[in-house]
Amino acid sequence: MQNAVVVNQTEPKLKILPETMGNILRIIPLGGLGEIGKNLQVYEFKRDILIVDCGLMFPSEEMLGIDFVIPDIRYLIEKKDKIRGIILTHGHLDHFGGLPYIWPKLGCPIYGAPLSIAYVKEKFQEFGISTQNLHTVKSTDKLQLGCFNIELFPMSHTMPDEVGLAIQTPVGLVLHIADFRIEEENEERKNFFAQLHRFANRGVLALLLDSTNAEVTGKSLTEKAVSITIEEIFKETKGRIIVTSFATNLIRVQSVIDAAAKTNRKVIISGFSMEKSIEIAMKLGILKIPKGIIVDIKKLHYLRDWEIAVLCTGSQGEEFSALSRMAAGEHKQVEIQPGDTVVVSASAIPGNERAIASTINNLFREGAEVIYGGAEAEIHASGHASAEDLKSVIRAVRPKFFIPLHGEYRHLILHAKLAQKAGVPANQIFVAENGQVVEVTKDWAMLTRHRVPSGYVLVDGLGVGDVGNIVLRDRQAMAKDGILVAIMTVDAKTGQLLTSPDIISRGFIYMREREDLVHKTRENIKKLLAKYNERHRANWALIKTLIREDLGDFLYRETERRPMILPVIIEV
Amino acid sequence: MQNAVVVNQTEPKLKILPETMGNILRIIPLGGLGEIGKNLQVYEFKRDILIVDCGLMFPSEEMLGIDFVIPDIRYLIEKKDKIRGIILTHGHLDHFGGLPYIWPKLGCPIYGAPLSIAYVKEKFQEFGISTQNLHTVKSTDKLQLGCFNIELFPMSHTMPDEVGLAIQTPVGLVLHIADFRIEEENEERKNFFAQLHRFANRGVLALLLDSTNAEVTGKSLTEKAVSITIEEIFKETKGRIIVTSFATNLIRVQSVIDAAAKTNRKVIISGFSMEKSIEIAMKLGILKIPKGIIVDIKKLHYLRDWEIAVLCTGSQGEEFSALSRMAAGEHKQVEIQPGDTVVVSASAIPGNERAIASTINNLFREGAEVIYGGAEAEIHASGHASAEDLKSVIRAVRPKFFIPLHGEYRHLILHAKLAQKAGVPANQIFVAENGQVVEVTKDWAMLTRHRVPSGYVLVDGLGVGDVGNIVLRDRQAMAKDGILVAIMTVDAKTGQLLTSPDIISRGFIYMREREDLVHKTRENIKKLLAKYNERHRANWALIKTLIREDLGDFLYRETERRPMILPVIIEV
Repeated sequence: MQNAVVVNQTEPKLKILPETMGNILRIIPLGGLGEIGKNLQVYEFKRDILIVDCGLMFPSEEMLGIDFVIPDIRYLIEKKDKIRGIILTHGHLDHFGGLPYIWPKLGCPIYGAPLSIAYVKEKFQEFGISTQNLHTVKSTDKLQLGCFNIELFPMSHTMPDEVGLAIQTPVGLVLHIADFRIEEENEERKNFFAQLHRFANRGVLALLLDSTNAEVTGKSLTEKAVSITIEEIFKETKGRIIVTSFATNLIRVQSVIDAAAKTNRKVIISGFSMEKSIEIAMKLGILKIPKGIIVDIKKLHYLRDWEIAVLCTGSQGEEFSALSRMAAGEHKQVEIQPGDTVVVSASAIPGNERAIASTINNLFREGAEVIYGGAEAEIHASGHASAEDLKSVIRAVRPKFFIPLHGEYRHLILHAKLAQKAGVPANQIFVAENGQVVEVTKDWAMLTRHRVPSGYVLVDGLGVGDVGNIVLRDRQAMAKDGILVAIMTVDAKTGQLLTSPDIISRGFIYMREREDLVHKTRENIKKLLAKYNERHRANWALIKTLIREDLGDFLYRETERRPMILPVIIEV
Repeated sequence: MQNAVVVNQTEPKLKILPETMGNILRIIPLGGLGEIGKNLQVYEFKRDILIVDCGLMFPSEEMLGIDFVIPDIRYLIEKKDKIRGIILTHGHLDHFGGLPYIWPKLGCPIYGAPLSIAYVKEKFQEFGISTQNLHTVKSTDKLQLGCFNIELFPMSHTMPDEVGLAIQTPVGLVLHIADFRIEEENEERKNFFAQLHRFANRGVLALLLDSTNAEVTGKSLTEKAVSITIEEIFKETKGRIIVTSFATNLIRVQSVIDAAAKTNRKVIISGFSMEKSIEIAMKLGILKIPKGIIVDIKKLHYLRDWEIAVLCTGSQGEEFSALSRMAAGEHKQVEIQPGDTVVVSASAIPGNERAIASTINNLFREGAEVIYGGAEAEIHASGHASAEDLKSVIRAVRPKFFIPLHGEYRHLILHAKLAQKAGVPANQIFVAENGQVVEVTKDWAMLTRHRVPSGYVLVDGLGVGDVGNIVLRDRQAMAKDGILVAIMTVDAKTGQLLTSPDIISRGFIYMREREDLVHKTRENIKKLLAKYNERHRANWALIKTLIREDLGDFLYRETERRPMILPVIIEV
């Protein structure tokens, strides 16, 4: 593993904050504030550090070739001996996916509800990491980690076993609520608010709350409504039904299995992450699956169309997912045929819109009927509480201080405005981004001017943090206009060319069709070398720089493209 | 200019269809069907060809470094002498932007309403193309082009001067309606439907209709509603107002100017395309602009906040647009300050979501209030008719045959379904994609099995069509994992290495931090060269191939990355 290279250019140098004087709690987001993903929240009080979540983020399109982005934990490494544990709120990659890369450097205990821990275990085994530090806790357990006395409480999300944290700190009670939603009027909702009221009665010093859907107004679609739509589709459809959703959306998976059971269809699972996710949930008894309803994909051809429901990966149009392969006619077992109905039971993660649209287009081309459009088509409910629900939570909790959690900057700001509407004074709301430090006492809180490192650490293949700005910039340059390598073999004594320069280019022009340009370029190089060799005899570094610049200008005039130019001088 | 390289891999070889026997009209889409953009529709009857629109498309993200995509017109070039003219429906780039690249190869007359022709003129002058073939027609004119007798009729869209085409062909009347919307109940709407009824009474053989919003159900927001919202925002806002929209959305531009006039604000224009677009419209007298309301941006600092409205480019988060520069704090004249209100009066073109979100985040960071969210926030109305309106048009026209125009495949399919609901029998509806040929007589029509070339022609800098699959694939490979050039200087007689191999890499690893790997790679190359030189003495092509493969495997084992590998052998 390499040293972490921090891509964020405004990154401060590593400065370790000394212990605070007096009773001050530090709240430091190392990920997930000012972005969607790689959530990692640090609570620090004197000699104790508590970490909540340790996620990864998928790269944005300019991060060419990158597999994942994880938080920069240099701050934590410096204070490693103070870390009392990591608590996971739930089993989504943006909350635990950083662990295989990060945990080996921290080595602290990890706590989570059964499903969360099961997902981590799976990953750790894949990475060959010991699982003996993983601790399963119940969603109503209490944990004492250093000076932090934590009560877990159950929350609702797209997967079971989500927990909220009520952290009794030496300065007061802090509520940490990650990704969550509130179901419509029912027992669960009542219990949830009753719980919040109990905390409120104890007095909540600070509330940290998921901001993901703070910009979503109006009434959200409920999971119940979605399960009704799915059941209706199953009842009305005569041909095969293919449903795609997020593999970890186990609540949705359950709805599909229920609908299949009611309409006498078998369920066939396709796609690695869907198989894995369901296998883990089944082992824990989390899914209610009637005996014999799940059948192996190899049995597909023994079933008649009206007996078939396929549950598969690919809701984001991912390149090698089951649904994309079906849409492209490349799936080994499932060939799309007229009469098939495909249900895309998910919404688009920003950036995936085109890939999803392309999959849907291809499914239509193959003759399928496709039901898509998420909330509009009533086939997807978000896992995140929207504006009205967020306000209800804030009103119920009546926190002294409010910090919006998880969201891009606009979500945090809109969430802060909601908190104001819900009664929190503006000067008691702190919009912090990654690396900023909020200090909280029982009387006051402030967004300090301290910044700890919190940039992007890029994972690419086996390299963690070894792809930095330079490598990325080179990839971007070559992606745009390609590369041209000019090799000049020169006499070591005279600096004269021994042979005509070799020119190799990739991604710039199709050289076979531009022999004219290749010829002109070669002549140009000869002239440049002669000229600069005369002026700067044997100062090859300088000569290469000058040739790079002049050749770049020449090629731009000829093509209006700016390939990366690599002059190479071989002395013989 | 290079020969066209066709990127679409399933592209047929150029096959020129001979003239049809008998009275058959050929309808051939060369762009815009199966995609959004580069619209180009061909109508061919015996010795006459009529072209409607000639657009460009913006590249999708996998088309690295590409500026634009234009239609493949090899079919038209072969039949150049039959082309009677190009008619433009309106002045959007996806309807005329291909002309500067394509027209020089066709040389036929171009017809369009004043605004459309003004935009083309601007482009032609930029490209140094003669404008003498541009002909301005009124939106109610009639044109005889070969055997085609064309009546233009006015349509509503986001810019003025949009025309529909009623083409009287030897086999019957064909209606061609590109991008359009129908305003809510008003005089314009009544006139439009009265016009359609008149055509219907004459008997419409075929209707070709914009499918862009065929998947949008429910009532669309009207432009009227948007102008009311904008006026309200202007009335309620005390600080500066900055509005961004598409530069060609002149209807919206007018609304902003009207709102500014009513609230005594001056309008400052920022961004090249916005300035240009407004300048062209003003010259034609298309915008109603009260005297003195538009002031130069240099006067900004003489105005008080409540007197300022800035109208700027950047609604899609484009990198160098005015709004992006403001958001990044890099705009020369406009520095965002708390109290500013930014209105993003546009919707996201798929693929631009992240760039727009990033701009909005940055505006919030600078302290602005941002109103965004398109139709939800009632600050943007689409320029395209949605499902209900499309059905109304089809019902009014009562065409014998129906061909959905302009849309990705799912839009075309959904539009075909709407046509069925509107009374057109399924076997009289033809969903054609680019390059497919529909033949129509007065009695029957069919989607033939003919395919004419219709792939992507890529424009990159000065090159038109010279970036093909190979160059693109190389860019994609280098974007992902970079490149490694291994230069081996060998004795021409013995094939033995004269010096240690030179290794240059870009975008693969940061070599300074991986000297270990560079060393191992160099040793590896020495071994490989010795081994293969012994076996295949002087067969350098083969030796390079073998080294490329082995070195690739070695580097993958070391890094799990697959850089492009270029072995170079220099014989001395």
